[in-house]
Amino acid sequence: MNSMERITTDDIADLARGAAVLGTGGGGDPYIGQLMALEAVESKGPVTLATVADLPDDALILPVALMGAPTVMIEKLPSVEQFVGAVTSLGQFLGITPTHIACMEAGGVNSSIPVAAAAYLGLPLIDADFMGRAYPELQMVTATLFGVQATPMSITDDKGNAGIFSTVSNRWAEALARVVTVEMGANSIVSLYPMNGKQVKQAAVAGTLTLCVRLGRAINQARAEHVSPVAAVTDILGARVIHTGKIVDIDRRTTAGFARGEAKLAGLDADAGKTVVLSFQNENVIAERDGVVLATTPDLLICLDTDTGEPITTEWLRFGQRIALIAAPCDARWHTPEGIALVGPRYFGYDTDPVRWNQVDL
Amino acid sequence: MNSMERITTDDIADLARGAAVLGTGGGGDPYIGQLMALEAVESKGPVTLATVADLPDDALILPVALMGAPTVMIEKLPSVEQFVGAVTSLGQFLGITPTHIACMEAGGVNSSIPVAAAAYLGLPLIDADFMGRAYPELQMVTATLFGVQATPMSITDDKGNAGIFSTVSNRWAEALARVVTVEMGANSIVSLYPMNGKQVKQAAVAGTLTLCVRLGRAINQARAEHVSPVAAVTDILGARVIHTGKIVDIDRRTTAGFARGEAKLAGLDADAGKTVVLSFQNENVIAERDGVVLATTPDLLICLDTDTGEPITTEWLRFGQRIALIAAPCDARWHTPEGIALVGPRYFGYDTDPVRWNQVDL
Repeated sequence: MNSMERITTDDIADLARGAAVLGTGGGGDPYIGQLMALEAVESKGPVTLATVADLPDDALILPVALMGAPTVMIEKLPSVEQFVGAVTSLGQFLGITPTHIACMEAGGVNSSIPVAAAAYLGLPLIDADFMGRAYPELQMVTATLFGVQATPMSITDDKGNAGIFSTVSNRWAEALARVVTVEMGANSIVSLYPMNGKQVKQAAVAGTLTLCVRLGRAINQARAEHVSPVAAVTDILGARVIHTGKIVDIDRRTTAGFARGEAKLAGLDADAGKTVVLSFQNENVIAERDGVVLATTPDLLICLDTDTGEPITTEWLRFGQRIALIAAPCDARWHTPEGIALVGPRYFGYDTDPVRWNQVDL
Repeated sequence: MNSMERITTDDIADLARGAAVLGTGGGGDPYIGQLMALEAVESKGPVTLATVADLPDDALILPVALMGAPTVMIEKLPSVEQFVGAVTSLGQFLGITPTHIACMEAGGVNSSIPVAAAAYLGLPLIDADFMGRAYPELQMVTATLFGVQATPMSITDDKGNAGIFSTVSNRWAEALARVVTVEMGANSIVSLYPMNGKQVKQAAVAGTLTLCVRLGRAINQARAEHVSPVAAVTDILGARVIHTGKIVDIDRRTTAGFARGEAKLAGLDADAGKTVVLSFQNENVIAERDGVVLATTPDLLICLDTDTGEPITTEWLRFGQRIALIAAPCDARWHTPEGIALVGPRYFGYDTDPVRWNQVDL
């Protein structure tokens, strides 16, 4: 499939669903993302998609994202003022007028908020992200690997409070923005990693939004044709199902602004008798079966409903759900030593080398 | 005593000691304040003091202060870059060049840091503060009573991190700056409440720095003349000693970025047999004797060493110290209904109306 040229109202549900697949459990609930993007595109018209390879070197790109717990959004969607305000206040602080909007991560909300911001600002959106998936912390982006600074960054809340940070490292941007986000009421909108076109061409994971729409559409089509939506997703991602199981236990705790926990999946069908423990910190981090690590970050661990292929975010994991657990290859740059230091399993507190999606004999 | 015209190296120890008297237990350790101001004035020359009444209406004033726990400063004094950076980054954000520096509160550190900033920036310092004492939270200033906004405000740390906040209320400025301060390592430098000359003339507590030097000098002189330094302080402040006692118990806990606690003072001399409990949240808040409230915020509760008259900040309260507990009248504006709502005993969690310095028969 070629790159899409624009995002219309017809694409938004597919975009949000496909982004939730790549979100690997995080990145926000696709239903909420869909509501926000749909309202914006219905009211302001389709959003032009810009291809990474065609960006002028001097383009000025301001990414925008939700930080914190997307669950809180169910009660109150971010206002237009909040997400447009994040972008414009950063532009004003930098003394620039942005030429493009971008996504930092693939996720049900975090691929949709930039669509809404681009619609309201009348700017093109770059068909890319900077993870090829979702991750819980601000510094966990390919841009960090290329030396791009997260700050100056802006942060806004739903009450009208706003901040700008300039930090000595991307880890410090994460630390300061995290405590402010918690104080703002568990989530915030941030605009960060201001980049020019040259930096985006180096650092971006190109084509992410087109891939998201393709994934969402394939799930729908498989349902309509009564074939396996799970197989449609593994085909597109070059991935495999590493376990099919029913959730028999779920332990969840919110600590320091993150949703951490484990889900226990008792095997079904060919996996009967085998139990997988899936651990997450907003996103799925590591899958272990009877003491053997099956796959870990940075490769993608994705939970789909076995029948409908619906991606299931970590906050929606529930006792009794039947899950196809997919392992998929990540962007190759995450497997460099610098990438592993930033997002490998040891960073998340697991004493293991990374295990790739296809490394273990099942 | 008339207003002073400038602050020289000869004034700084007196300024810091006198400010610690008005600091009512908070506002920082005077020794640390003294070190910082002395270094700055030795290296850049005396600081010109500006009288509030003479300020042009269009003067542009940027106050500067330490936020958080001054105790941490013993290990590492704030750098020139940190406190000058707070002022210049706020000026740049506002697009103005400040004409004056100001103190927000009287305190051993918070009356000295503005001296150091004024010296390094080559700007006059206003002979005033916005409390006439010290208080633990950013919104607790006379400026709030006159509708002055705390933000835009800047915040800097010792590592080179910086932020700017724009908030919908002064309480929100406190909430966001507080969590960032804790994350920055327990303290930060802030520049906030940008004001013009007209606003300062309305809201300031005029003459505070001159009063601090006068208090510090009177304590020294009384020592040299072998008369009571405590009496010298009560004379100047029109205050009274409400209890003389020895600390027999001290309970201290750090919660949510504040030093909270109680000290128990067993009466000495004429107060033998009576016990006072002094409660503090950074600053001394309320003094009770055998169930009777003797005095509360907003009036000043000051601990002086009975013999030397040395002001004792809450972090230096120790078992066995002999304390003259002074109650002194506050700036009259704190006793308005708006003032009491902002800094009265109920705000600090005590179910009592304010009790004035001279209200109770001892």
